[in-house]
Amino acid sequence: MNHLRELLVGSPLPTHQLSDERLNGVRALAAFSPDALSSIAYANQEIYLGLVVAGAAGLVYSWRIGLAIALLLAIVAFSYRQTIHEYPSGGGSYVVARENLGALAGLVAAAALLIDYTLTAAVSLTAGVAALASAFPTLWDYRVPLALGFLVLITLANLRGLRESGTLMAVPVYFFLASYLTMLIVGAIKMLVGDPRPFAETAPPAVESATTFLILHAFASGCTALTGIEAISNGVPAFKPPQTQNAQRVLAVMAVLMAILFLGSIGLTQYFGITARADETILSALARYVFDDSPFYFLVQTATLAILVVAANTSYAGFPRLASILAQDSYLPRQFSLLGDRLVFSNGMMLLAGLAGALIVGFGGDTHALIPLFAVGVFIAFTLSQAGMVVHWLRLRGRGWPLKALVNGIGAAATTVTLVVVSVSKFLDGAWMVLILIPVGVWFFLTIRSHYRQVAIELSLRGAVPDPTPMPMPRIVLPVSGMHRGVYHALRYACSISNNVTAVYIEISPGAADRLREQWAIWGQDVPLVVIPSPYRSVVGPLLEYLDQTDRQYADGQLASLILPEFVPAHWWQNLLHNQTAWLLKLALLYRRRRSGTFRAIIDVPLYLRK
Amino acid sequence: MNHLRELLVGSPLPTHQLSDERLNGVRALAAFSPDALSSIAYANQEIYLGLVVAGAAGLVYSWRIGLAIALLLAIVAFSYRQTIHEYPSGGGSYVVARENLGALAGLVAAAALLIDYTLTAAVSLTAGVAALASAFPTLWDYRVPLALGFLVLITLANLRGLRESGTLMAVPVYFFLASYLTMLIVGAIKMLVGDPRPFAETAPPAVESATTFLILHAFASGCTALTGIEAISNGVPAFKPPQTQNAQRVLAVMAVLMAILFLGSIGLTQYFGITARADETILSALARYVFDDSPFYFLVQTATLAILVVAANTSYAGFPRLASILAQDSYLPRQFSLLGDRLVFSNGMMLLAGLAGALIVGFGGDTHALIPLFAVGVFIAFTLSQAGMVVHWLRLRGRGWPLKALVNGIGAAATTVTLVVVSVSKFLDGAWMVLILIPVGVWFFLTIRSHYRQVAIELSLRGAVPDPTPMPMPRIVLPVSGMHRGVYHALRYACSISNNVTAVYIEISPGAADRLREQWAIWGQDVPLVVIPSPYRSVVGPLLEYLDQTDRQYADGQLASLILPEFVPAHWWQNLLHNQTAWLLKLALLYRRRRSGTFRAIIDVPLYLRK
Repeated sequence: MNHLRELLVGSPLPTHQLSDERLNGVRALAAFSPDALSSIAYANQEIYLGLVVAGAAGLVYSWRIGLAIALLLAIVAFSYRQTIHEYPSGGGSYVVARENLGALAGLVAAAALLIDYTLTAAVSLTAGVAALASAFPTLWDYRVPLALGFLVLITLANLRGLRESGTLMAVPVYFFLASYLTMLIVGAIKMLVGDPRPFAETAPPAVESATTFLILHAFASGCTALTGIEAISNGVPAFKPPQTQNAQRVLAVMAVLMAILFLGSIGLTQYFGITARADETILSALARYVFDDSPFYFLVQTATLAILVVAANTSYAGFPRLASILAQDSYLPRQFSLLGDRLVFSNGMMLLAGLAGALIVGFGGDTHALIPLFAVGVFIAFTLSQAGMVVHWLRLRGRGWPLKALVNGIGAAATTVTLVVVSVSKFLDGAWMVLILIPVGVWFFLTIRSHYRQVAIELSLRGAVPDPTPMPMPRIVLPVSGMHRGVYHALRYACSISNNVTAVYIEISPGAADRLREQWAIWGQDVPLVVIPSPYRSVVGPLLEYLDQTDRQYADGQLASLILPEFVPAHWWQNLLHNQTAWLLKLALLYRRRRSGTFRAIIDVPLYLRK
Repeated sequence: MNHLRELLVGSPLPTHQLSDERLNGVRALAAFSPDALSSIAYANQEIYLGLVVAGAAGLVYSWRIGLAIALLLAIVAFSYRQTIHEYPSGGGSYVVARENLGALAGLVAAAALLIDYTLTAAVSLTAGVAALASAFPTLWDYRVPLALGFLVLITLANLRGLRESGTLMAVPVYFFLASYLTMLIVGAIKMLVGDPRPFAETAPPAVESATTFLILHAFASGCTALTGIEAISNGVPAFKPPQTQNAQRVLAVMAVLMAILFLGSIGLTQYFGITARADETILSALARYVFDDSPFYFLVQTATLAILVVAANTSYAGFPRLASILAQDSYLPRQFSLLGDRLVFSNGMMLLAGLAGALIVGFGGDTHALIPLFAVGVFIAFTLSQAGMVVHWLRLRGRGWPLKALVNGIGAAATTVTLVVVSVSKFLDGAWMVLILIPVGVWFFLTIRSHYRQVAIELSLRGAVPDPTPMPMPRIVLPVSGMHRGVYHALRYACSISNNVTAVYIEISPGAADRLREQWAIWGQDVPLVVIPSPYRSVVGPLLEYLDQTDRQYADGQLASLILPEFVPAHWWQNLLHNQTAWLLKLALLYRRRRSGTFRAIIDVPLYLRK
């Protein structure tokens, strides 16, 4: 078990090896951009799927929707540029919303972000597998197991630790950029030498008409192109100094690259009237058209798969880090704040992997089905973050604050409008789930925090003074099922810690105690043996009654301790072959509430079986 | 929780209420025949489904297959008549095979019987639901939930106790007999006044040809008509005296009724060339034809459903009883031999319900898919029982033994041939599962028995003598995570039972122990506090190492006891919010093997949280 773990995850690392690694521009772009850059893969696909139902009449809106989304991208990028400046130690939506809009807004942002990270992992993997299966259509039916396979791989890579998985990232990111920019350039040359094809010649027949709702719906789906743009603002401390300027520069480069890739691919698609088969993505169809099925086509698909897998990987940094911050603030179970063997937040990673895996299976590995859930969470986080920045400027009123507030205000307004469009147009497709999950998540956070507070109060010794009188020697009760080696060990142990020991036998069939009494005379160490008949064949009930009754008789302020002889079989499954009386007894005692201050100690004396 | 249980299952009953209830002929027929009588419902259906693929050319074999099965029925009935005589205290296949053919044959029979009981429950319920859904086709898609619903109902009825469920049985059995005999009589009258229709006019076109294999396959499926015939031989003690004669008489009546119902219905089906829709059973089609969709038709379907549910119910007597016998012989976990609150073998019933439910779900509520598994087990049990009887006569050589051995020998030969036909023709349809499961079951029985034997040897005090020197006072180690109320209670308890107590703190972040040392000076009762640094952030590992090390230092032949302050949260889910260090520690200790005779006691001191 431990060997397998060490092989997969690596051997433990000591705490002092935890040190910060600072990234230069080239590596920072590779570290923070995969999610943002790769999102064009599914955003393009969603716009296409949203419009193609209206045939050529719908698809002609592609370019205009692309422009609207690029404008939104520019607004949001400018808005986050200011966040980076103001929150050099990391300005995730949770931090910005909590500081400026209050704890509740922070928790809403946190819930939205946890959902987003999970969806980023799930959507990136399903979209990556769709790119692969577009090139190799026989794989189309195995999208769920393939996506789960990649999920397991990146989970293991991340459980090994960030350092090793960090260096893996740069290659696919630049490979993706190179192959996509090549595709756009080759496509542009084809535009110069070739002729445009209108969608009217290539599009399948319309099954719906191109209504405003249909176009807004496609726009809402396409807004997933913006996911990941906030990543840099969360991670400013990871940049080489001067951190703020470097982070802002990388953000600008990233936003420009996103716009080029997005508008370039959507423009080519519309110019050449590209459409796709049912088991192919639109980007695959574009690449196939541009490269005429040459090996370059397979290169582009491989690059898409690779960057999407790396994008899924970014959730493995964000989700566990946010979970650990929430756990430190007592909003999540404390276990999420603990560094694992390999200096990573292993519990958060495993939760993320479990949730993303469930989404992949639950939605049949279909990106299109997951997208409606995705967009809502993203824009809730954007909106809260931008609105928080507006409040920040209003409070701070530093140099040039009205302009800065205006920039973030435009960002907030634009993302709010988009949020409403997305929520309404995608409500029935699945956005409702997220709109329910977020308040549930917030309630969950608050409940957990209130529990931790209560425990701290109950555990506190404040105001108490040490008791100068020692506790009296405990009374001990030993339940026996017969006379055997385990009972004998427990009896001797009990006699070594107290001179008030009683053995109790619950007699289920009348007369069964006779043989025990004989044996007790030999082995019983002069400890009294009490036999209690149990006509209803229950062992636990009569025993609890006996304990209560003697506690009342003694009335010495303490509860009798229980000593339990227990088998430990050599193999776990053998536990199933024994009556779990000791276990049932402990469970029954656990759930009987006690007056505060009194307790019943339980002493387990294990007997290890050899076979 | 307890209230709900009491409402569903009833309040506990004392052991002395367990007494035998003796049945007269009429009630005995009702108690033992449902399985046997009702099996004509699925047997007819299976013969039909087996032949209809060959169209009219196949269906014309119905009557001849029916005659062959009726002959087999007569042979088996005569064979069991002798078993009843020789085993008046109950001659189930397990008992007869074990006594005459050896323990291994007994276990094979036991495995086959447990599988049969499970399949009886599953098949009867799915066939009953099919009868219902034939009358109300809208229910056809809900066969799985309906079958599970009936399963839950009969499980609850049986958990309440046999007495109450016994009286429920007579009504549906006689209702079924009355309605089916009426149908046969009305059908016979129609035969006299109406004309035969050959299958050639009504059968759907053939998709296969009527090969010998196809006909043997249909015969093999039809042999499930015999299931349940052995029930009386298991239950002779339940009859009013003279038990043997009464049991034999009821067996004869039952066999004659089975033959009449089976041959009558199959004869009418062939005479009138009845065929059925895909979502209807052949018996439903027959009843519809005979009664022309009048209310009588619905009465017949209701009676079919009712007797099939009662038939499923008979497994709730057989399975738990056999499981308890096997448990008493140490072949199954001891829990199966315990009488529950209501004087029934509740554990066996719940296992049966779980297995039958899994079969219903796993096979999509489809009787036809379950039948291949069913027939094999039944005929293995028949064959072993009959073969056991032959050996019985050869050994006993009482008056007229050659004739008696011949009767059982013919029975054994006939069932063996049928077993081979069934195994081969149904092998790929699912019989292979049973042929694998039976040896697995036997291996399982033998493994369990060898474990119990080993435990008895290890627990035995035979040959040992009481140790006259008392055990020395234990050394006690108290792991502390900080200074709080729970730790303080545990510390005081430890000091009350030993004067050798050490507190141990595992320091994960350097310097964290300083504050604890200050508090320990106030609250520590002069107990030494050992601080152990843990650079790899593990708590359990360093603690186990400390225990091993001090045990080696003392070398006093004992292992230090561990005292663990534990929270008991007010609600179970709150356990998820705490580091389960105590639990992990116990688990780690559990799986470290110890030298025989040494043990490490673990003392739990619970602190009950109020909220």
